Amino acid sequence: MKKTLLSISTFLLALTTANAQTDSVMLRKIFDEALVNGQVYENLRYLCKKIGPRLSGSANAQKSVEWGKKLMEGYGFDKVFLQEVMVPHWERGAKEQGYIIDGNKKIPVPICALGMAVATPAAGITASVIEVKSLAEVEQLGESVIKGKIVFYNRPFDNRFIETSGAYGGAGDQRRSGPSVAAKYGAVGVIVRSLTAANDDYPHTGTTQYSDDAPKIPAAAISTKAADKLSAMLKLRKFPQAKFFFKQSCRMLPDAKSYNVVGEITGTENPNKFITVGGHLDSWDLAEGAHDDGTGVMQSVEVLRIFKAMGIKPKNSIRAVLFMNEENGTKGGLKYAELAAANKEQHIAAIETDEGGFTPRGFSFEGFNAARVKEMNTRFKKLFEPYEADRLVNGGGGADIGPLKQTHPGVALIGFRPDSQRYFDIHHTPNDVFENVNKRELELGAAAIASLVYLIDKGGI
Amino acid sequence: MKKTLLSISTFLLALTTANAQTDSVMLRKIFDEALVNGQVYENLRYLCKKIGPRLSGSANAQKSVEWGKKLMEGYGFDKVFLQEVMVPHWERGAKEQGYIIDGNKKIPVPICALGMAVATPAAGITASVIEVKSLAEVEQLGESVIKGKIVFYNRPFDNRFIETSGAYGGAGDQRRSGPSVAAKYGAVGVIVRSLTAANDDYPHTGTTQYSDDAPKIPAAAISTKAADKLSAMLKLRKFPQAKFFFKQSCRMLPDAKSYNVVGEITGTENPNKFITVGGHLDSWDLAEGAHDDGTGVMQSVEVLRIFKAMGIKPKNSIRAVLFMNEENGTKGGLKYAELAAANKEQHIAAIETDEGGFTPRGFSFEGFNAARVKEMNTRFKKLFEPYEADRLVNGGGGADIGPLKQTHPGVALIGFRPDSQRYFDIHHTPNDVFENVNKRELELGAAAIASLVYLIDKGGI
Repeated sequence: MKKTLLSISTFLLALTTANAQTDSVMLRKIFDEALVNGQVYENLRYLCKKIGPRLSGSANAQKSVEWGKKLMEGYGFDKVFLQEVMVPHWERGAKEQGYIIDGNKKIPVPICALGMAVATPAAGITASVIEVKSLAEVEQLGESVIKGKIVFYNRPFDNRFIETSGAYGGAGDQRRSGPSVAAKYGAVGVIVRSLTAANDDYPHTGTTQYSDDAPKIPAAAISTKAADKLSAMLKLRKFPQAKFFFKQSCRMLPDAKSYNVVGEITGTENPNKFITVGGHLDSWDLAEGAHDDGTGVMQSVEVLRIFKAMGIKPKNSIRAVLFMNEENGTKGGLKYAELAAANKEQHIAAIETDEGGFTPRGFSFEGFNAARVKEMNTRFKKLFEPYEADRLVNGGGGADIGPLKQTHPGVALIGFRPDSQRYFDIHHTPNDVFENVNKRELELGAAAIASLVYLIDKGGI
Repeated sequence: MKKTLLSISTFLLALTTANAQTDSVMLRKIFDEALVNGQVYENLRYLCKKIGPRLSGSANAQKSVEWGKKLMEGYGFDKVFLQEVMVPHWERGAKEQGYIIDGNKKIPVPICALGMAVATPAAGITASVIEVKSLAEVEQLGESVIKGKIVFYNRPFDNRFIETSGAYGGAGDQRRSGPSVAAKYGAVGVIVRSLTAANDDYPHTGTTQYSDDAPKIPAAAISTKAADKLSAMLKLRKFPQAKFFFKQSCRMLPDAKSYNVVGEITGTENPNKFITVGGHLDSWDLAEGAHDDGTGVMQSVEVLRIFKAMGIKPKNSIRAVLFMNEENGTKGGLKYAELAAANKEQHIAAIETDEGGFTPRGFSFEGFNAARVKEMNTRFKKLFEPYEADRLVNGGGGADIGPLKQTHPGVALIGFRPDSQRYFDIHHTPNDVFENVNKRELELGAAAIASLVYLIDKGGI
């Protein structure tokens, strides 16, 4: 009996080893396909250079929907369809202006309205500036200090974080909630130090979220160099000599009709079970939305292209989803989950790629406890090691796939994790252009994601 | 007895754990110092922007020696000194010219002489072109085909390599040995497809090595786009309609006197035992030598600066070595080993950083067998994991520390391994400039190297 047990376990071990060998051969083929025949880079070039910025509700967003659909139809995926969704429609309007006013001197600063922000009066706002490092400081200073002023949030990134998303998370409340907190105490406007570790001349946009219990006041980001300059000036000069002026003419239009674009390779065994790979098709209006998130949507399409080119017939249905409206509403992500529930789809896993098209480091598994992370490492780490994409950790999945958590409890939500060092240098700036994407880094990311999809399709998660 | 053994092993385990905890605290402090107070980026800015290209024997190379010495003296290291060394002195001369000649059409191509190459006649060389993919192909074609022609080596990078150094290694013989092999069969000149995976308009220089048994013929690199264009043209047209023209006026001057620059923090216990960290101070003449290897020399200085700033008093002597002449002779590396032997220095380890200032991935240990690599991983992997620099593998140390192998058998030779994807896009091109270096990536690399030096100093290797 003991002997039988032993030989069974030997058999199982042999089976596992054989499986791992097959898997490692498949992964090598997936990477070869991506690196030798990859189309993700040229697709990204088209999206960036022929379409360009594509904020929700814009004509370019519509163009990108139509092109994305055509692209996937051209690849001959089993299904390609649109999911209609109403999205917020915000427009920046004329280029913003901002000055540090130092007595008679006007020092122009690189500035841009925060996404979803309201306009200044046509003549702009001129006011005394109060510099703060946190929302709490505004609460503490209260109306007597804040009223009538422009609040200047100037807490920099904490550079000690190894992954820059930690620093972004730590500074982000200034942009998201800073304007409404300042408005509660009578501020007339808000300027925010750009959310980046870089010391440069680019203002970073990004959404602010007005709360219902405060007036909506104009809010803008200024470059980190300008923030340092303003802060230095405020140490030397006081009101009325020291003031700030800014002017912006952004506005909200009525919600617009738009779409998620979905491509699918239908599963041979479980057509109603889904593994989703997605990024967002919309992008900020200041540049081309290359790393944020042209790389993510083009990688998602590339995953299906690789499957098709290699003749992989997945057991479950694999979908590439080009989500609409991640930047200022996440309406596409919400719609995808809503329809998934309405259509009684079963969802196994969803992988989001929205942290840039940089060299892959691994994946983060949302809500996985230590034991389950360990299990992921036992199953997958060795396979991803040759591709240096073997960092498998607990962590967030992503904004667009997040709503599946509510509609499909138990779905595995997974974030693709590329190297994070350069992302916030260009994120939401005029620098987020095709030229700042490296072809091989982008291809390696697509291959890593395709590999994980392959493994999950084969062995579950 | 058993109990005693158990408690001893428990005690040892506790000791190891305590040690690991102390180490992890120290590494965190080293990274904080590099990320919060780092000076490596501003030092690199100076080297690139105030000094610039610094090929061995040039006036700029001498400037960089003087500045490097002054920089380290300013930091107050225990010793700062020069090591005199004679180096080859090659000059590019006037900007090269190259044309694809297609009948009456002259199509200009981006071209640059290979380092150490000879000039063409003043009027340039015009000849029929024979395209080959390998040195073996030239040998096979022989004199009847090769004689009087320009040989065009056009084997591209193999993109399947995950680390690009593999692709560089695989294509590099065309540049290094291609000219002399072609000359043996009577070729009048050689052009080489630039050693890069990038598809762009930049020619990549780099040393060619003339052998003694063949005439020295002019040799140059052309951009990958130009190589593709020439190859396409050669498929359509034959001699005499299809020709190539190039002209270069580079020359060898007499060997020049130059220096390695050495900074040292002297060991408290073993002043004559050394751990070396180094990169090379010389750089190609086409740009600023930012990633190759300004980042490496500035990281080496930063390691010592971090030690000093943190008040770490190493047991062994720690040296930062700015090697001269890695690009076209490695005379500095040879001199360092020669003097180390002559001065009866004991060398524990040497770490070279010469693969660019990109985000750190780990280290390669030269000649370490599987058991010793495993030991490195057991000791260090967990410590480097939080910094995503935990890839510890068998592999090369580096060209400048290599000569220590002969003089100091047993010394551990270690290569710093940053992410490799972008390196050969800019390596040896006009694009190797400060702007292409990311501050945080550079700082993280310096911290990773300082951490390894700290651990080796404390626990040996």
